[in-house]
Amino acid sequence: MRNKAMNVSTFIGCEKSYSEAEIVLFGVPFDGTTSFRPGTRFAMQAIRPDSYGLETYSPYLDKDIEDAAIFDGGDLDLPFGNPAKVLDQIFEYSQEVLADGKKFLMVGGEHLVSLPTIKAAYEKYPDLHLIHIDAHTDLREDYLGEKLSHASVIRRCHEFLGDDRIFQFGIRSGLKEEFTWAKEHTHLERFSLETLKEKILEMQNVPVYITIDLDVLDPGIFPGTGTPEPGGITYRELLEAIKQFQELNQIVAADVVELSPPYDPSGASTAIACKTIRELLLTLAE
Amino acid sequence: MRNKAMNVSTFIGCEKSYSEAEIVLFGVPFDGTTSFRPGTRFAMQAIRPDSYGLETYSPYLDKDIEDAAIFDGGDLDLPFGNPAKVLDQIFEYSQEVLADGKKFLMVGGEHLVSLPTIKAAYEKYPDLHLIHIDAHTDLREDYLGEKLSHASVIRRCHEFLGDDRIFQFGIRSGLKEEFTWAKEHTHLERFSLETLKEKILEMQNVPVYITIDLDVLDPGIFPGTGTPEPGGITYRELLEAIKQFQELNQIVAADVVELSPPYDPSGASTAIACKTIRELLLTLAE
Amino acid sequence: MRNKAMNVSTFIGCEKSYSEAEIVLFGVPFDGTTSFRPGTRFAMQAIRPDSYGLETYSPYLDKDIEDAAIFDGGDLDLPFGNPAKVLDQIFEYSQEVLADGKKFLMVGGEHLVSLPTIKAAYEKYPDLHLIHIDAHTDLREDYLGEKLSHASVIRRCHEFLGDDRIFQFGIRSGLKEEFTWAKEHTHLERFSLETLKEKILEMQNVPVYITIDLDVLDPGIFPGTGTPEPGGITYRELLEAIKQFQELNQIVAADVVELSPPYDPSGASTAIACKTIRELLLTLAE
Amino acid sequence: MRNKAMNVSTFIGCEKSYSEAEIVLFGVPFDGTTSFRPGTRFAMQAIRPDSYGLETYSPYLDKDIEDAAIFDGGDLDLPFGNPAKVLDQIFEYSQEVLADGKKFLMVGGEHLVSLPTIKAAYEKYPDLHLIHIDAHTDLREDYLGEKLSHASVIRRCHEFLGDDRIFQFGIRSGLKEEFTWAKEHTHLERFSLETLKEKILEMQNVPVYITIDLDVLDPGIFPGTGTPEPGGITYRELLEAIKQFQELNQIVAADVVELSPPYDPSGASTAIACKTIRELLLTLAE
Amino acid sequence: MRNKAMNVSTFIGCEKSYSEAEIVLFGVPFDGTTSFRPGTRFAMQAIRPDSYGLETYSPYLDKDIEDAAIFDGGDLDLPFGNPAKVLDQIFEYSQEVLADGKKFLMVGGEHLVSLPTIKAAYEKYPDLHLIHIDAHTDLREDYLGEKLSHASVIRRCHEFLGDDRIFQFGIRSGLKEEFTWAKEHTHLERFSLETLKEKILEMQNVPVYITIDLDVLDPGIFPGTGTPEPGGITYRELLEAIKQFQELNQIVAADVVELSPPYDPSGASTAIACKTIRELLLTLAE
Amino acid sequence: MRNKAMNVSTFIGCEKSYSEAEIVLFGVPFDGTTSFRPGTRFAMQAIRPDSYGLETYSPYLDKDIEDAAIFDGGDLDLPFGNPAKVLDQIFEYSQEVLADGKKFLMVGGEHLVSLPTIKAAYEKYPDLHLIHIDAHTDLREDYLGEKLSHASVIRRCHEFLGDDRIFQFGIRSGLKEEFTWAKEHTHLERFSLETLKEKILEMQNVPVYITIDLDVLDPGIFPGTGTPEPGGITYRELLEAIKQFQELNQIVAADVVELSPPYDPSGASTAIACKTIRELLLTLAE
Repeated sequence: MRNKAMNVSTFIGCEKSYSEAEIVLFGVPFDGTTSFRPGTRFAMQAIRPDSYGLETYSPYLDKDIEDAAIFDGGDLDLPFGNPAKVLDQIFEYSQEVLADGKKFLMVGGEHLVSLPTIKAAYEKYPDLHLIHIDAHTDLREDYLGEKLSHASVIRRCHEFLGDDRIFQFGIRSGLKEEFTWAKEHTHLERFSLETLKEKILEMQNVPVYITIDLDVLDPGIFPGTGTPEPGGITYRELLEAIKQFQELNQIVAADVVELSPPYDPSGASTAIACKTIRELLLTLAE
Repeated sequence: MRNKAMNVSTFIGCEKSYSEAEIVLFGVPFDGTTSFRPGTRFAMQAIRPDSYGLETYSPYLDKDIEDAAIFDGGDLDLPFGNPAKVLDQIFEYSQEVLADGKKFLMVGGEHLVSLPTIKAAYEKYPDLHLIHIDAHTDLREDYLGEKLSHASVIRRCHEFLGDDRIFQFGIRSGLKEEFTWAKEHTHLERFSLETLKEKILEMQNVPVYITIDLDVLDPGIFPGTGTPEPGGITYRELLEAIKQFQELNQIVAADVVELSPPYDPSGASTAIACKTIRELLLTLAE
Repeated sequence: MRNKAMNVSTFIGCEKSYSEAEIVLFGVPFDGTTSFRPGTRFAMQAIRPDSYGLETYSPYLDKDIEDAAIFDGGDLDLPFGNPAKVLDQIFEYSQEVLADGKKFLMVGGEHLVSLPTIKAAYEKYPDLHLIHIDAHTDLREDYLGEKLSHASVIRRCHEFLGDDRIFQFGIRSGLKEEFTWAKEHTHLERFSLETLKEKILEMQNVPVYITIDLDVLDPGIFPGTGTPEPGGITYRELLEAIKQFQELNQIVAADVVELSPPYDPSGASTAIACKTIRELLLTLAE
Repeated sequence: MRNKAMNVSTFIGCEKSYSEAEIVLFGVPFDGTTSFRPGTRFAMQAIRPDSYGLETYSPYLDKDIEDAAIFDGGDLDLPFGNPAKVLDQIFEYSQEVLADGKKFLMVGGEHLVSLPTIKAAYEKYPDLHLIHIDAHTDLREDYLGEKLSHASVIRRCHEFLGDDRIFQFGIRSGLKEEFTWAKEHTHLERFSLETLKEKILEMQNVPVYITIDLDVLDPGIFPGTGTPEPGGITYRELLEAIKQFQELNQIVAADVVELSPPYDPSGASTAIACKTIRELLLTLAE
Repeated sequence: MRNKAMNVSTFIGCEKSYSEAEIVLFGVPFDGTTSFRPGTRFAMQAIRPDSYGLETYSPYLDKDIEDAAIFDGGDLDLPFGNPAKVLDQIFEYSQEVLADGKKFLMVGGEHLVSLPTIKAAYEKYPDLHLIHIDAHTDLREDYLGEKLSHASVIRRCHEFLGDDRIFQFGIRSGLKEEFTWAKEHTHLERFSLETLKEKILEMQNVPVYITIDLDVLDPGIFPGTGTPEPGGITYRELLEAIKQFQELNQIVAADVVELSPPYDPSGASTAIACKTIRELLLTLAE
Repeated sequence: MRNKAMNVSTFIGCEKSYSEAEIVLFGVPFDGTTSFRPGTRFAMQAIRPDSYGLETYSPYLDKDIEDAAIFDGGDLDLPFGNPAKVLDQIFEYSQEVLADGKKFLMVGGEHLVSLPTIKAAYEKYPDLHLIHIDAHTDLREDYLGEKLSHASVIRRCHEFLGDDRIFQFGIRSGLKEEFTWAKEHTHLERFSLETLKEKILEMQNVPVYITIDLDVLDPGIFPGTGTPEPGGITYRELLEAIKQFQELNQIVAADVVELSPPYDPSGASTAIACKTIRELLLTLAE
């Protein structure tokens, strides 16, 4: 009788052990630098039970989660009030997963938590390219004096990735300076994902990390986020982008950030996160 | 003074008596097999008062509810905890309405409640064809051992309708087996309604039943449902489909299911149900 | 690193294995006969994460959860649409736990799910006495024809426990017939818990099962329930009752039912369930 | 089959026709002068369906709604934007009910709507006494220049009732001038209902109108109101007051106002309104 | 230290004084004739703090709020219960702003509050043309007998503007008579904004007032409104329209009405209002 | 016309300038170390507009806010992600207000923000005594390794105040160690405020700082907080405590913390904060 074992809680279909897994899914419940409306710390807590409202089979990719080897590692246990220490712990865990020869899908949390996971991927794959899908540039030098902020995470990544490695799509908000800076240092497409297909063709054989800030979606379809920015893409457009990722031959890790379940009690935003995670897990699976 | 009569509550403009009505509108407040998030039992209770936020006139069809002969029969009074008995009561009521030479529009409730209404229509019109608009296949043989489930309602219909009578549109979720089974037994269009127009032309002169599970809509525009499935159609696309229904010459009955008002307190989802009901009532009216 | 083990989710401090546990905590996510407003199926899903907002130490009882031997068995996996089958599964699990020499605390779900757990306790302890704290009599012979209903659960228990074994407190709603029936068959105190102390003294050395329907609390302090009944007791009064339970020498099992988290998004009702569970677990612990 | 009659919606158990009724229940969905947070227009729309969560039997009064002769007249149909016209319509309806030899229980709406109903009762019973239970004095001469305002309704009543006829209880908010004015013109008890019993004894044989602004309750137990004023009475205290009303021999009408359902989606506040209405209907019944 | 000045609250970046301002932003918190669901009185109260979730820079127009001279005049202080008096106050304020040689952007409130602002603009610019973007015709002669109603605001404007000056877009709801009337008296485009571009070319050099009822947007993306009407335009389409406004050489004033924040606690609808206001302010700025 | 001045937003009646004020009210929107559910950063944003639902006159104290000299200094502008820097800024502002010979009432934010305000008061009044009303001990040495945490704020205060200066009331949650530690270092009353009166008499002529964590109230009446702890005091009990504060002759400053408006959209919790602030301001006023 299953209730004699401990009560295990995973994303739907992710029931392999760590050792047999090809992919590790884990949550990072941290929103400590969120300036406007916190809540992304609750993302994974909402995602796991709601993932059972989906099927494990994707008719888009014609693949099934149950055929993949995925371990759900739960959520990291993080202190609040000390972002630097938090980032260290995330870095360490990500590095270890990669060292064990696995890929990972991290679920935030605010966007700042992508910094250590991208860093860990970069350290293993120095030629790393970054696909960044977001409503916001995230290219500030600092935010109210703090350099470790959700609003400057991609700028921080640029410090180690350098020029020509960052590809930004769907961007529709930022300071004028950020847009100007981007012209010299990243590929930045405003408002849509139109150039994604062509850029993917150029990255087919290099190591790629994909970071998706779900607020790239229109707040009409994704209200459950801290900083809703109207005029975003539709979910069909995001699904189309994920389909195009199938052309990439070396995705080493990915993340999905900025779901804030308290702002959408209907669960529609959480369903979007769940489906995006399912599609990305199937994309990472070989 | 109207307040000396009993307090009558109807969908906007549906104020004819049973005997003078051409169309009967009625509610089925049942969600007893809902596995994930219940709430559709409250649909009609929200729809009636909110329908007064609409006009009775449709600029899409250039027709007015007040020119049609529609009776609002209220909601069936159903026990919980015994689905088989519930389905019998719905069947009996639907059959009687049809026997009286009327059409009906039933409002759920979960999708399982369409089984007895479709059955009743089939018994009167043995050549019945079914148009099924939904996010989910609903083709499971059973769900956790139960054959009477919202997840298997169309499979149950197939048992009497047989092959080549069921036309499914907008489907984007199901087990792999369901999609495979559908290839041999139904017409199933994935993701969109593109083939609807052409199929309607083939059904112009046969008796047709239309069942609309509103979760076919994107959860962004219709969050008020038990199992939100991202990536759905827009409301304009659904309106377009209803316009195409005008080409059908023998629609005998229809239903609209799976609105769960507690999941969308903004009332936007309820407004969608109301408008869909208005357009379908005008479609049924001659 | 803990994230290499599977992601385990328990009530705070309940981390013993089944074999070492003295007490088993388990959830029964079923609300299939709920006639008014469903939602208790989500109780345990809300309780586990929110229990971490409490401390493991109770200053009321001066005892700590971490000093007790408690196993959290998760939730039973139950089909909807077939109450009789559901009750069988609950009965079987409860019986097994008792057979293994353990006590249990079951968390509902609607009140009907207490029927099989009380039955299991009765079969092991034929002299079982029942303490029933509730707003409602739950003594209907049937509800809309169904004998297995949340509104008749104590009446069903009376069929095996018989007269003089059922002690009801806090009752403030029911049919006139139920109150009349109770006069001959149970001890029923209306509106408050005043006679509880005296009754406990009479039950000190017999096996006792405690069933707490949280809607006994005033809806002002416990709005998260399906059938709010104004005029209930305060939480301090319930805490006082639990303190009195310390006088009982043979509590064999207990349950806490009818939390419906969707009706109280503030989490205050869930916090009440959590604290009640903590105090009852400490009461069951030796 | 009941669904061939029109869909009738009443408060639980109030199913007599107008002509056979001793008591008329009706709703006044108006909140047009509400200065802070509107919403009481939705009160009756929430109360009717939720009243089915109660029983018709009151264990407090040992009486049953089904034994009384009560007609539910629905809601008056009122324009917004013209308070004077609205008050005229309410007055006319109330007057007619009284002229037909019936009592009434009116359910607001904002407190201003009590002005015409009290006026109508006064015109029939010139010796009318008023029991006013409320958090607020409602004694302003005007509000932002408007004399017809929820904040001045009792002051307007004083214009025809005169001194020594108005008895206010539970009052805990007002301008200093209002409290000062009350000293000379009304009986006003601050914060509690302690003097109610004694005042009732003095009014036993005179015609009495009871107006209950539910915001007299503590917002903890009654958050569903436009102007929550902390520090109010408990629901048990209000029930106790209603019990004391049984001593009055000539209650001619009553009202219950200021439930604003949108501010309490849990339904707990609506349940309080429902139970208060049930108890008052049973109090009015002979 | 800034906290020694009074606590000033403005829309993001609108910090110029009245005298130095070219544009005045002000709020009109009135919803007194709203027949269905009130709440627009709270719009500005939600908009000001949430505007800080945006940036001051628009990548659509490549302009920055901080480079414009905008004064935020706060909200008018209006009585409820007397619409005529309210409209007078709005008229007076608008007239004064125009007399001082400034433009204004007014934020409602319900649509009726546009009547006095359009009137004031017309009195200064007798050749005024009106661009009206809305889901509803707003062309009723009266509403339940009241001529001053949100449902008749454009009809009232026609009384002074006359034929050929009113251009309506996105309209998808109204009485049949309204659509018929419009054929002779206004330019009315149903369902979309397709003809906007061409009409703008005709109005390039005449004084133009733009009134945007945000319920023109689909309720999926803008649920925070009193009368959701499914099947509306997307936010990208509205942004496109605003871009086209850049072709107009003499926009004299504008308004944005019908945001009702209580109906969308996610804040997504408020974000849409904020972004629309930012884009219109930048459009008004020279 | 008032709308030509900037839009000023204050707590009701607090409209004096800094220089003429005797008391400074200011907000500290910080919740960066909140471990469970953030949201207190939004407290003041909700309190200011909702304070207009109250009157300025208190019938409890028979005093009026408008007769006091109070300046509303707005909210401090604080970075997230760096608690130490935040505390420095709060300290500096508090110190300056005290240096200018004024008292202050600070409104949080999480409880940690009381540390610098108490520190500032202590530096000016070395004989400072602290009255601490709370559900939680807040006496942890550290929380997950962080010494600056809401859970350790009173422990940090003890480091400078020392033994016999801290008086805790209403405490009902903490680690066993905290309760043990308190026995030697503070006066701690569990569960209620019974000893408050007597302690106040001992502190009549010493400088006193009052810190009120509103979660001391029962979550039934105050659900809008991050860590609801059932079994708290009633609002009448808190009002009674404030009345007793009138006996103190040297209250130098006070604070009210832990309102989290997003968790109570009814506004009842915000109303409690508003009323508590009004009563405390009147208590501070001479």
